[in-house]
Amino acid sequence: MEIFQVAGAIVCTHRHEGMEKLPLRLLKNQKGKYMVAVDTIGSRTGNWVYTISGSAARLALPDKSLITDLTIGGVIENWETEESNSAAT
Amino acid sequence: MEIFQVAGAIVCTHRHEGMEKLPLRLLKNQKGKYMVAVDTIGSRTGNWVYTISGSAARLALPDKSLITDLTIGGVIENWETEESNSAAT
Amino acid sequence: MEIFQVAGAIVCTHRHEGMEKLPLRLLKNQKGKYMVAVDTIGSRTGNWVYTISGSAARLALPDKSLITDLTIGGVIENWETEESNSAAT
Amino acid sequence: MEIFQVAGAIVCTHRHEGMEKLPLRLLKNQKGKYMVAVDTIGSRTGNWVYTISGSAARLALPDKSLITDLTIGGVIENWETEESNSAAT
Amino acid sequence: MEIFQVAGAIVCTHRHEGMEKLPLRLLKNQKGKYMVAVDTIGSRTGNWVYTISGSAARLALPDKSLITDLTIGGVIENWETEESNSAAT
Repeated sequence: MEIFQVAGAIVCTHRHEGMEKLPLRLLKNQKGKYMVAVDTIGSRTGNWVYTISGSAARLALPDKSLITDLTIGGVIENWETEESNSAAT
Repeated sequence: MEIFQVAGAIVCTHRHEGMEKLPLRLLKNQKGKYMVAVDTIGSRTGNWVYTISGSAARLALPDKSLITDLTIGGVIENWETEESNSAAT
Repeated sequence: MEIFQVAGAIVCTHRHEGMEKLPLRLLKNQKGKYMVAVDTIGSRTGNWVYTISGSAARLALPDKSLITDLTIGGVIENWETEESNSAAT
Repeated sequence: MEIFQVAGAIVCTHRHEGMEKLPLRLLKNQKGKYMVAVDTIGSRTGNWVYTISGSAARLALPDKSLITDLTIGGVIENWETEESNSAAT
Repeated sequence: MEIFQVAGAIVCTHRHEGMEKLPLRLLKNQKGKYMVAVDTIGSRTGNWVYTISGSAARLALPDKSLITDLTIGGVIENWETEESNSAAT
């Protein structure tokens, strides 16, 4: 799963059937590249999130018939990278 | 979903069966790389669009037997990236 | 679909069952990276082609049991990127 | 399969159903990019691991209904890259 | 299919069920990045190989229940990139 920061909202027209109801979010990755993802968990601009790609992106939605290749999986509250944490695993 | 700008039309020969009827568009990504996508929503040169890749690209087409790995999902009318928008979510 | 130039032929041994009969071509992408693709449309060295990746690469072959993750979809005869073309869409 | 070093733990909220029970790990790739993966083998911070992506990431889990696009496949104990090893194959 | 050079062997622990019996090889791509692939054709260190990724990587194995996202498809004996070869196609 990739890590992105939510950059804002996105307004689209001409959506395909099955994408009309999807709440889309604009994401920015660690290199500054923008992507669009489906958000069903209510992330906010500025949140760090991880995303689920590929066929799993559809499985993560309550309605499996919706079409997406990138879905926000969760909001990252914090992470721990100290070497000392390895003992706690 | 990735973000591209529609760069123009593309003329191909020797298409596979199941690709003959597909309207193909030339896209350019944020780094200037060109890609080819199926467009069933009528995007125009200069439009910013987001695309659906992988197996979902086929699901986005009315006829699921058509072959594609990249389909235009919608035209991006505008996006909002101000921090102040996060409260509205 | 990605865009490549056909760079030449490729000779392989120890192919998997289901890959023995596949005509393989050496491709070069826009950054000079080499890839290998299945070609069932008879492209020639120097041709610009677009390719189909992922599970769709298998669907593009007449025999769906053949194994590939990259198949040439068509030869690109020419493309038009002028802004004036957008009106014709 | 890609190679990563386990960088630490990650704490998330608003997880999708089917991801609540998944033990997530923060990984760092060879270029310093961070990713999130499911770990069901008990890797520790500092370990080098290889990961399974795409639909295979789900197949690698005991419960196939869990949602992931990246699963740790194994801990890499050591590797041998000497030319002399080729004779032993 | 991507092109790699076989860099050596790799020793792992804590493998998932369904990966225990897989012969894994360490590969190096054209930019020096290391990857891990399943090898069922007996490639040797120093060999240039092409690999099959995604769901096709599993289909390339005799036992389809084995888990992989990258499988060596064949050893590349030589390639021809001269323009003059195009006439022979």
